[in-house]
Amino acid sequence: MNIVVDAMGGDHAPAAIVEGVVDAVNDMGVHITLVGIQEQIDKELEKFDFDKTHISIVHAPEVVGMHEPATTSIRKKKKSSIAIGINLLKDSAYNAFISAGNTGAVVAASTINLGMLEGVERPAIGLVIPTLEKFSFLIDVGANTDPKPQHLVQSALMANVYAREVLGVENPTVGLLNIGEEAGKGGGFAKEIHKLMEGRLSNFVGNVEANEVFSGKSSCIICDGFVGNVVIKVSEGLMESAGALMKREIKKSPLAMLGAWIMKSKLKHIKRYADYTEYGGAPLLGVNGVVMISHGRSSPKAITNAIKATVKEVEHDILSAMIKEISK
Amino acid sequence: MNIVVDAMGGDHAPAAIVEGVVDAVNDMGVHITLVGIQEQIDKELEKFDFDKTHISIVHAPEVVGMHEPATTSIRKKKKSSIAIGINLLKDSAYNAFISAGNTGAVVAASTINLGMLEGVERPAIGLVIPTLEKFSFLIDVGANTDPKPQHLVQSALMANVYAREVLGVENPTVGLLNIGEEAGKGGGFAKEIHKLMEGRLSNFVGNVEANEVFSGKSSCIICDGFVGNVVIKVSEGLMESAGALMKREIKKSPLAMLGAWIMKSKLKHIKRYADYTEYGGAPLLGVNGVVMISHGRSSPKAITNAIKATVKEVEHDILSAMIKEISK
Repeated sequence: MNIVVDAMGGDHAPAAIVEGVVDAVNDMGVHITLVGIQEQIDKELEKFDFDKTHISIVHAPEVVGMHEPATTSIRKKKKSSIAIGINLLKDSAYNAFISAGNTGAVVAASTINLGMLEGVERPAIGLVIPTLEKFSFLIDVGANTDPKPQHLVQSALMANVYAREVLGVENPTVGLLNIGEEAGKGGGFAKEIHKLMEGRLSNFVGNVEANEVFSGKSSCIICDGFVGNVVIKVSEGLMESAGALMKREIKKSPLAMLGAWIMKSKLKHIKRYADYTEYGGAPLLGVNGVVMISHGRSSPKAITNAIKATVKEVEHDILSAMIKEISK
Repeated sequence: MNIVVDAMGGDHAPAAIVEGVVDAVNDMGVHITLVGIQEQIDKELEKFDFDKTHISIVHAPEVVGMHEPATTSIRKKKKSSIAIGINLLKDSAYNAFISAGNTGAVVAASTINLGMLEGVERPAIGLVIPTLEKFSFLIDVGANTDPKPQHLVQSALMANVYAREVLGVENPTVGLLNIGEEAGKGGGFAKEIHKLMEGRLSNFVGNVEANEVFSGKSSCIICDGFVGNVVIKVSEGLMESAGALMKREIKKSPLAMLGAWIMKSKLKHIKRYADYTEYGGAPLLGVNGVVMISHGRSSPKAITNAIKATVKEVEHDILSAMIKEISK
């Protein structure tokens, strides 16, 4: 297996990316192709010990900035690590692509260069989120902000496959993110999707309200890319603000500082709880290739986890499984 | 001033409602008219000392259930505390209506029986949310789930008035909740609203991403009712899950239990932070009357706070101020 990794993507690239790649190679014996500015990658690789036959480099002289407009970056930077990396997937010797870079650019490059899976009209980004029980798979968190109802049904079918094959959920369930529990609730768009899902998905459990996203009520939670993006960003912001507030409050009292020191590891655990960046990236589903988008702030560990997830995707041949699920 | 309060609305009605009302009366000397089942209200009132000239009761034999479909409940239960309470506002002797009951029913009854403010096409529910600095005013959190772009502009103008007159923000700013910072980001709907707001609002600060909702970046944050509802419910669910997780983790270690005990008051402070139920309800703006919707789980303190907020709305004559702001 050969996983292509964008060495230049993310806030801590290439250092964090290369470190995560080396860990994955040492840990799993997988083969990685790093794409990016050769000399920068070489410099990072020098810091580590690893089996040199397991990492190759493909030079890409250009880098897409994290905040560059996606479409222009793809049109203008044909030699970026994202463009070159995605194009490698057209060669069957390469099995998957991972980037912690510009999400919009990865989505655009994948859609344009790899095309769509049979039966899927639009790409969607899934995200494994922590719940009190296990994990839920939230999709779409930002690829398609103006979807048609059938796009969400297609995402639900793909999510089924991902939950079963990659997350190991035996009988996944599908819920629709909505603002009420009853079938008749929500905006006109939500009502239309609810109806479609009822007809098409045998494992549809109905509406899931946003306060149940972290409760594990359903293994897959379907929403449009605008709403899904709001869900993950609100969670991120709330945990950050609550953390900052806690620090401020604790500093006011020496006794509280002692208490916080004693339970430091537990507080860290809670903080990590909502930190989905650790869980190994967000699969871009619907395109004709295994593509994983990692958070811009990805740590080496997050990159290693992303590699592990793509390995599973490839081993379980999820592209074929999705085509099959959709054509059923 | 005479504030009408629905004694039957909410999970802890009428006990919590009556207690909150008595506290407000003793605290502020305001006059309250409780609407609901007379004997139940009498029974609760017996428990407290207060100036009896400050609380009146209007009997309403019917109660709208928390999960009843809004429109049928309004059509079928003409003698509910919500319907009778809202109708009292048509008499200028009554200044405002507060309910912790069925939100949909309050919105429907207000819209149908009071009509809309001049220049406003649809109602919107605002919510005062805590930020690291002070408060932000998020609108709409659930009244209008299929809005047209101009409805959001109207909400923004009303939010300006609310922030200035009730929250005391001298120069409020208005941000649009969107999934990217730049003007060109978001779905087609968001882009259209962005353009409209730029043209109409002199204090428009552009897009606010969902992770900035709790950071206090802008005093008013505008979104459609579907997205706004998702924002508050996700926050609610995340704080609940994080709290449950913390309890579970702490129980595993006696040392952590000690630490948690020491910093108990600080942990409670954080928990309260995201608990917008304490801040005194969510004003229903756009209808031709001062209407406040409190959370179903409202405590007596939340009811007292809701009464305080409506008193401010009435004192500052926000209905006239809104009409003026919109007609500018």
